[in-house]
Amino acid sequence: MTDESQSQAEAGAGSRRRGRSGGGAAARRAVRQSGGLTKFPAISRLINPYEVLNEEGLSIIEANAETILQEIGIEFRDDPEALAMWRDAGADIDGERVRFPKGLCRELLKTAPAEFTQFARNPERSVRIGGNNTVFAPVYGPPFVSDFDNGRRYATIEDFRNFVKLAYMAPAMHHSGGTVCEPVDIPVNKRHLDMVYSHIRFSDMPFMGSVTHPDRAQDSVDMAKLVFGSEFVDQNCVLINLINANSPLVFDETMLGALKVYARAGQATVISPFILAGAMSPVTVAGTLAQILAEASAGMAFAQLCRPGAPVVFGTFASSISMQSGAPTFGTPEPSLVLYGAAQLARRMGVPFRSGGSLCGSKAADAQAAYESAHTLMPTLLAGVNFVLHSAGWLEGGLVSSYEKFMLDVDQLAMMQKFAAGIDLSENGQALDALREVGPGSHFLGCAHTQANFETAFFRSSIADNNSYEQWEAEGSQRAVQRANTLYKKVLSDYQAPELDPAINESLLDFIQTKKDSMPDAFT
Amino acid sequence: MTDESQSQAEAGAGSRRRGRSGGGAAARRAVRQSGGLTKFPAISRLINPYEVLNEEGLSIIEANAETILQEIGIEFRDDPEALAMWRDAGADIDGERVRFPKGLCRELLKTAPAEFTQFARNPERSVRIGGNNTVFAPVYGPPFVSDFDNGRRYATIEDFRNFVKLAYMAPAMHHSGGTVCEPVDIPVNKRHLDMVYSHIRFSDMPFMGSVTHPDRAQDSVDMAKLVFGSEFVDQNCVLINLINANSPLVFDETMLGALKVYARAGQATVISPFILAGAMSPVTVAGTLAQILAEASAGMAFAQLCRPGAPVVFGTFASSISMQSGAPTFGTPEPSLVLYGAAQLARRMGVPFRSGGSLCGSKAADAQAAYESAHTLMPTLLAGVNFVLHSAGWLEGGLVSSYEKFMLDVDQLAMMQKFAAGIDLSENGQALDALREVGPGSHFLGCAHTQANFETAFFRSSIADNNSYEQWEAEGSQRAVQRANTLYKKVLSDYQAPELDPAINESLLDFIQTKKDSMPDAFT
Repeated sequence: MTDESQSQAEAGAGSRRRGRSGGGAAARRAVRQSGGLTKFPAISRLINPYEVLNEEGLSIIEANAETILQEIGIEFRDDPEALAMWRDAGADIDGERVRFPKGLCRELLKTAPAEFTQFARNPERSVRIGGNNTVFAPVYGPPFVSDFDNGRRYATIEDFRNFVKLAYMAPAMHHSGGTVCEPVDIPVNKRHLDMVYSHIRFSDMPFMGSVTHPDRAQDSVDMAKLVFGSEFVDQNCVLINLINANSPLVFDETMLGALKVYARAGQATVISPFILAGAMSPVTVAGTLAQILAEASAGMAFAQLCRPGAPVVFGTFASSISMQSGAPTFGTPEPSLVLYGAAQLARRMGVPFRSGGSLCGSKAADAQAAYESAHTLMPTLLAGVNFVLHSAGWLEGGLVSSYEKFMLDVDQLAMMQKFAAGIDLSENGQALDALREVGPGSHFLGCAHTQANFETAFFRSSIADNNSYEQWEAEGSQRAVQRANTLYKKVLSDYQAPELDPAINESLLDFIQTKKDSMPDAFT
Repeated sequence: MTDESQSQAEAGAGSRRRGRSGGGAAARRAVRQSGGLTKFPAISRLINPYEVLNEEGLSIIEANAETILQEIGIEFRDDPEALAMWRDAGADIDGERVRFPKGLCRELLKTAPAEFTQFARNPERSVRIGGNNTVFAPVYGPPFVSDFDNGRRYATIEDFRNFVKLAYMAPAMHHSGGTVCEPVDIPVNKRHLDMVYSHIRFSDMPFMGSVTHPDRAQDSVDMAKLVFGSEFVDQNCVLINLINANSPLVFDETMLGALKVYARAGQATVISPFILAGAMSPVTVAGTLAQILAEASAGMAFAQLCRPGAPVVFGTFASSISMQSGAPTFGTPEPSLVLYGAAQLARRMGVPFRSGGSLCGSKAADAQAAYESAHTLMPTLLAGVNFVLHSAGWLEGGLVSSYEKFMLDVDQLAMMQKFAAGIDLSENGQALDALREVGPGSHFLGCAHTQANFETAFFRSSIADNNSYEQWEAEGSQRAVQRANTLYKKVLSDYQAPELDPAINESLLDFIQTKKDSMPDAFT
């Protein structure tokens, strides 16, 4: 599947090609309002990415990654088929260890598209992944949820639906994500059906498939076919799927199984070394980067072996651990440097990049949570990440999907979208007439230029309180987390489900019922 | 005063020339420990600044600033001497309005040093301002203080001393600042004496002089002379002083009076347009940048008229207002863009730059405060700001110096210092041996490379809680603000005053007493 054929498919699917719509004024012009819902298109960055490595540094790390691939190799465990595929491709196989002749992975990656479209059932919500685009998706994976009223508890399918709805309602959330929380009230072997259905039923944005078993991956593809049609799914990306490496230097049977299903179905895989540096990678940034590059290269190249042209994303989740307690830490300098460096490596390789989000280790949606999240999210945008999992709701090292944190985060996402539009240098942006009109010692509040621009001039937070101390105190001295609590309830109460063709809905429900009836419940 | 003569003076004053010591490993090597006190040297950034404007954008804004200076002009109010100086320099004077022939300000700025040293009474704490250096200084100006136990109240001299002590104790705080809070329990016309004395007595870092009246500026210079000697003060910068423009396009008598005292004494002035965009400047980023450049250029050029070679800093404080309520807002995208753009303009002009900090509008040290602060502080570092006022303690739009916010912020400053060191590409940083030793499927916790590096590998927060949920709950489910409360008390209790020559101390106390006795108390 080439980029060009995707473009044609995109046109065929009724989605329009976006120009450099960016955030800010351009984003506002491009805002899609339907039934009172305000949604921004995915970010098309007009600002440059920030780079922490120069040419020499990048070359050193690339050479080290090749050394890792050649000398140390990577294990593909419990998957004889994968080993055979690698042998046929020219790799050196020693037990489950695969060693790659110099340049093999890069050669295989020549068939990977530099960017691709993931289609949504609402063509207006389709997103372009790669290039100067940034797509925000919610938190992925927490077994717990929390809110300010009831605290922390195991997640249920109702929570899952709520987070899908909150994501749908958030203007700067471009993607419905995947496991927005783990609905532990549903059997392990069946919950993927309810999760995929919830994304389709309660949102119209693009979403992610199940990766916990090859059969569940296949179910995800089959359900997507009910929505998009079999032929369309075969020729276009409608699912993006998270394939974690077992760092260091291992891919396991489960993830390889899901990878093969999705790649062969022409669906996108995000090959993500999951790194807590110091445990799963060296304690240094440069060492971690070389390992990440080696792992991601091998995984993405394997996807190309499964189906040349299958969309792949260079992913990484990188944090550090406390060398005192072993606990993961977030929002510290080292993971930021890893993120910036890995983004550069992905750009040079010519593949889309996934990393970052609004990560934090805090147990409460407090100052720690916000500092840590901001110090992940801003690098995420500035590095030029293309696909951003965990961009809202993440709390407590990813163990918890927090309702309030979700609202705090989506406010930040909207700010990032505005920032990404850069500085408007049009005549109106230059505002010389305003300066001439006002002159020394006066103010700009009433001038013509301000009157013409004030509604859209400055970002307006949905959470921040900028009232006077006295007014804030009179209103109960609320902290941000309390305002977020009020807001998420209002948003859920305002939610209206997007339309879904009743025939498609019925076919999905039939599919789910048949699947559920075909096997006993499993809880492990 | 040329840069070269400063270097000689620096050598003469016993301070060593710093190389590119940076943060991280280099900073740790350079850490100065005395009496158990850990202090980092000022940041010497090893990372590139982030740039939001290209050559074309910069040229547009520079041309617009020249248009403002030529056509609209700037008012120098209630200061006939200043007008006369401008007339002599070739400017066009119309009442109090000064219009500048094209290029005049830039021509005058050729005598301004590109960077300079501000000396501290402890030569180890002297800082280099300009170039790739970043110096963090505390919040400046709040009339209130707050802490978690007692809430918000008017500041006193005891609070002032406490913040000087907290700054002295913070590893990544490089400067004692100025009005860390406004000690309203001391008469308006005398409190500058106690403030300057507190910086000298309770810290040994560089500090700022009073700007609220020319006489108080002179008192600040005279007290500095008691510490450093008259000749040294005449030839070297020992005070850096905040001169705000009355934006738009006005300098007033008070600020001009202080500016003249300091510039003529060879001391540094930070010429800072104080902008709430939409009120004091146009509602657009590019318009605001042109105005800032015009104001800062005129102010810095005036300092060169007062004494060619006097150190000047291109300053800006830029935020936005809520176009609904008129309240200032912080941590939003537009001020970040202004900050990045202004830093580029200052670099092109070849003068040091001041902006940013840990600004927020929140009334509590909560998630809002942290998000907003982080979204000011990270741009501050990435833009390459040289002198950072308000880098810790700022709350509620600058009305409050918060004890807890101070501790939260200085933790962030230490992270910024580590980030600024960039990626270590030494052989140890590359860590190939660790990867060879560990290989696939194992972990790095016990390997030789980890053992050799773990103590300094990752940033260790003094505030963040990364324990398990259960442990956190057992310890009282404390929010970050509560941990910061505990910490600030511990730091104050650990504080030990740096040594001060008793003869100097006595001369300062005599000077203060004489001054205080010479005039009645004034409270307005």
